[in-house]
Amino acid sequence: MTPADKLATLRGWMADHGLSAYLVTSADAHQSEDCPERDRCLAWLSGFSGSLGRALITADRAILFVDGRYQVQATRQVDPTLWQIAHLHDAPPEAALRSFSEPLRVGYDPMLWTVSQIEEMTAAIAPAGHDFVALSVDPFALIWSDRPAAPMGALRRMPDEVAGESGAEKRARVREHLREQGLAAWVVTRPDDIAWLTNTRGRDVPMHPVPLSVAILPVDGPMIWAIFKDKLTAGQITPDPDVEITPPERFLDHLAQIAEGNAIGLDPNFAPQAVEAAILKAGGTPVRSDDPVTVLKAAKNAVELAGYRAAHVKDGVAWTGFMAWLAETVPARFATGNPVTECEAADEILRLRQQQDGFLEASFNSISAAGTNAAMCHYAPKRAENVPITPEALYLLDSGGQYVNGTTDATRTLAFGPVSEDVRRIATAVLKGFIALSSARFPEGSFPHHLDALARAPLWQMGLDYDHGTGHGVGHSLLVHEHPHRFGKRANPYPLLPGHIMTIEPGYYLEGQFGLRIENQVEVIADPEVPGFCRFAPLTMAPIPLGLFDMALLTDRERGWLDQYHAQVRMRLAPLLSGIARDWMLAQTEPSAKVGHSQGLPRNE
Amino acid sequence: MTPADKLATLRGWMADHGLSAYLVTSADAHQSEDCPERDRCLAWLSGFSGSLGRALITADRAILFVDGRYQVQATRQVDPTLWQIAHLHDAPPEAALRSFSEPLRVGYDPMLWTVSQIEEMTAAIAPAGHDFVALSVDPFALIWSDRPAAPMGALRRMPDEVAGESGAEKRARVREHLREQGLAAWVVTRPDDIAWLTNTRGRDVPMHPVPLSVAILPVDGPMIWAIFKDKLTAGQITPDPDVEITPPERFLDHLAQIAEGNAIGLDPNFAPQAVEAAILKAGGTPVRSDDPVTVLKAAKNAVELAGYRAAHVKDGVAWTGFMAWLAETVPARFATGNPVTECEAADEILRLRQQQDGFLEASFNSISAAGTNAAMCHYAPKRAENVPITPEALYLLDSGGQYVNGTTDATRTLAFGPVSEDVRRIATAVLKGFIALSSARFPEGSFPHHLDALARAPLWQMGLDYDHGTGHGVGHSLLVHEHPHRFGKRANPYPLLPGHIMTIEPGYYLEGQFGLRIENQVEVIADPEVPGFCRFAPLTMAPIPLGLFDMALLTDRERGWLDQYHAQVRMRLAPLLSGIARDWMLAQTEPSAKVGHSQGLPRNE
Repeated sequence: MTPADKLATLRGWMADHGLSAYLVTSADAHQSEDCPERDRCLAWLSGFSGSLGRALITADRAILFVDGRYQVQATRQVDPTLWQIAHLHDAPPEAALRSFSEPLRVGYDPMLWTVSQIEEMTAAIAPAGHDFVALSVDPFALIWSDRPAAPMGALRRMPDEVAGESGAEKRARVREHLREQGLAAWVVTRPDDIAWLTNTRGRDVPMHPVPLSVAILPVDGPMIWAIFKDKLTAGQITPDPDVEITPPERFLDHLAQIAEGNAIGLDPNFAPQAVEAAILKAGGTPVRSDDPVTVLKAAKNAVELAGYRAAHVKDGVAWTGFMAWLAETVPARFATGNPVTECEAADEILRLRQQQDGFLEASFNSISAAGTNAAMCHYAPKRAENVPITPEALYLLDSGGQYVNGTTDATRTLAFGPVSEDVRRIATAVLKGFIALSSARFPEGSFPHHLDALARAPLWQMGLDYDHGTGHGVGHSLLVHEHPHRFGKRANPYPLLPGHIMTIEPGYYLEGQFGLRIENQVEVIADPEVPGFCRFAPLTMAPIPLGLFDMALLTDRERGWLDQYHAQVRMRLAPLLSGIARDWMLAQTEPSAKVGHSQGLPRNE
Repeated sequence: MTPADKLATLRGWMADHGLSAYLVTSADAHQSEDCPERDRCLAWLSGFSGSLGRALITADRAILFVDGRYQVQATRQVDPTLWQIAHLHDAPPEAALRSFSEPLRVGYDPMLWTVSQIEEMTAAIAPAGHDFVALSVDPFALIWSDRPAAPMGALRRMPDEVAGESGAEKRARVREHLREQGLAAWVVTRPDDIAWLTNTRGRDVPMHPVPLSVAILPVDGPMIWAIFKDKLTAGQITPDPDVEITPPERFLDHLAQIAEGNAIGLDPNFAPQAVEAAILKAGGTPVRSDDPVTVLKAAKNAVELAGYRAAHVKDGVAWTGFMAWLAETVPARFATGNPVTECEAADEILRLRQQQDGFLEASFNSISAAGTNAAMCHYAPKRAENVPITPEALYLLDSGGQYVNGTTDATRTLAFGPVSEDVRRIATAVLKGFIALSSARFPEGSFPHHLDALARAPLWQMGLDYDHGTGHGVGHSLLVHEHPHRFGKRANPYPLLPGHIMTIEPGYYLEGQFGLRIENQVEVIADPEVPGFCRFAPLTMAPIPLGLFDMALLTDRERGWLDQYHAQVRMRLAPLLSGIARDWMLAQTEPSAKVGHSQGLPRNE
């Protein structure tokens, strides 16, 4: 089908259903960060392949809404004779809808839009008099003729010895919480919550080891798990006795049955609007609140924490081997006219991880970016382009792995030759911010939004900033971006407590020039010295090569933190390394005073 | 009436109205920080005089809900045979309601509870099956026999030359915004918004110069101002032609008339639930959003800013005279056995302000606190207690004034004798936090919650913190705590922009020992050096006596900020001072290096 055919077919379908407009979203029913092919209806319809977008289709207009990141890409990918492109935040669908003077009947799929999304849009367009119509049929089931099938990835069991707690015990803890809140059940629509609740992992989407499915956890009676049974059979998984398997299409029926006359909890920022509607229709009371499963899952138990630490030591061995290899190979190969390429480097870090016991797959596609490419925050190297890594420009690797007992994510920015004074000053500000947050002591229960500025202040003093968050939660052999914790400017009202896992990753990007980031994964620990306070203990065990920084600009306290971190890296990795990797690691983890002297840098003590 | 009689009468009234429970709040219809006596129904009923509380009355229980600050005070003030006391946050009314197994009919006054409050409570108690009943009658109108009359403070006109913009121009800007949002009107229930919209100030409650009233601002047609006409007459105020005065009791009728078939905007965190109900009943659509009046009011215009600056110079003269007097008088009078008292000091700062042109009244009751009293964050000195200010303990003054062209608020902590090493280290951490935030450069549009930690980090490093916000907006000859900006740990999603006025006031309080705070008022300015960034320019012009601090612990950057601030204070105040006040000011504003040397302090350069 041509892009014009696709739109025409959708418009025909709209007319058949008495709709004057239809809203399309890039989201699936779980608001996943990455969806299986079959759920990428917006991409199929418009040609736009980015991870986030919306579209509004009327009889004579088709508007694609994408955010700042995607304006250029959208222009390249969609047919401008068919589509207009609008800014998702500055001119969102509700603003477009307000501009129509005649009242519209606006259809949408209530499994793909959340309770909050529909409520906010309804409020915003109320003055315009449009009607929102939740449809029980998915137009793409009819008009997308060669639509891929739903993925049927086999589940794998995460043994209780690795999870640290049985699924039954976890469900009992959630039920206890629901009872306190007077709720009869909780609706679980985030597959990583289901993975945690059932001690299983999925294989539906690469690097996102969640079992795509939804569930209802009642206070009394079995958990209703709406999932294709084949995923369990293929993984030879027998569900626990208090878990009942049901086909996905039966989910809303089960919900209605449980909801009748009962208070049912849901998270309005994730639950499909169809969930709230089904509860209401069944005579139940939807109760909106924070997701207790997500919150309980975020505080890792002692076994999970031990798993993360072990996985990070293995990952550190891979990182160290990788950086040692690069340090030697980049200048050497450059001199021979056969430079190392971005993709070759990405392959190498994967190869080194694959040598580690317990490694499963990457946790995301490595951002292996040389020179100006590193200035693109979400760059992905392309094989066809063969971009070389040279001693003349910075190289950035943001990369991680899925291990049986943990998920890793780290970034290092490396220089293989001289660095300009300007770049060195900025890199040092990034390092100062990284150390400020990494070394912070803070009251237990602080909000991530409250700590974020510590990582930015040194850049701000130079009149610089970065346009991304400073860190995120990380799952346990699960999603590399785990809800709900996030360091950023926007409010994140989820208190930080011991056992939470975060990344700390300030950076700086100058378009067309260079990109810089330093990222460690950390765990929140109770401060051993001051009751009521917390600190971050580093999980990532990989040297931070200091060649990029002006060590003279660091305070004693900052140098002290670096030295302590490197001493820890050395202690953990030394027994596991040999040859040039070991030599390189030992050199990089020398106390900074010595490094300073050997490089003849002045010191401000 | 005895406390028991009051409860019995209320219960009789409840029975007459078929209610099994009734909710009482300390709030008035504007959610004011301080209400007139007639609105203090909770205080009358329970005896509890604190600024924030709720009560739940049933046939056989009366529960008073107060927060952590007020647990002790509530226990002293209410009769324990009649009342239970509960923690407002840990065990709020909704939790108490959930504990009743039989369904209740819970009455409340929908003018005193906000849209959000009722919605949240309704959601929280949904599982318990209670009914919330909005009543059109106020029980206290019947049962509070000697209830004071509503205040009838005469308005005063704020001339356009002082406001910088006419009321008509302001209303036109708000109407423009409403038009863009597709709203037919905005409901204004915050009296300081009305003061701004009409260029008037009120005299209903001391130090809170707002005209207690509500209003409706339609896009077309006159603003409906529901206020007792006598307040205008007494102030010889003729309303603008596009403002229609109506009696307060006609407010909801006017609202219904305007709402019919229209979209009406309201702020759910302030608008009474009765407002939303009236819009719905009239066939209108309530649209919840941030208050455009509040947001426009927060960005002060050039004339207002000039007013603040001028008022602060006058206030600085008073502060300086006060501190110079204290520095001389506290030790001298202590030596003669006739020490200066807290109340005497509070009288003196007021007397010195009264000598300044344009001073109207205090902007709040001075917190004049010596020694251990300063450890109470919201301490108010009592005349009967005659608490002395001695050279042996710290003295804290948090004080401000209402001027015709601005409102001031500042805090200084002073030592008149030796200070222990521990206190000096903590005071220095407070100073470092104060300077870190005061000197910060930050991206335009940063959220206050995002900057707050800069002021706390030095204390956190010592394992300390303070349990209050770091600062707040300040009105223009208006409320000293002006919504919506607030530096604190909780989310405050209101971007900081040039022209916003804030306080910066970190502190530290050790119960039973001492209290410390440093507070300046500042304006947000566009960074003159870096486009897209902002800085804070100090408004408060009062020396920060350095005797309390360990100057050796400051960095060069921190000392540089202090020196620049003191140079500015000296430049502004020197022409206006004479005698010992001038001498003291000149000594206090010497560059810190010189101070450091003259005191023989080591310096770490």
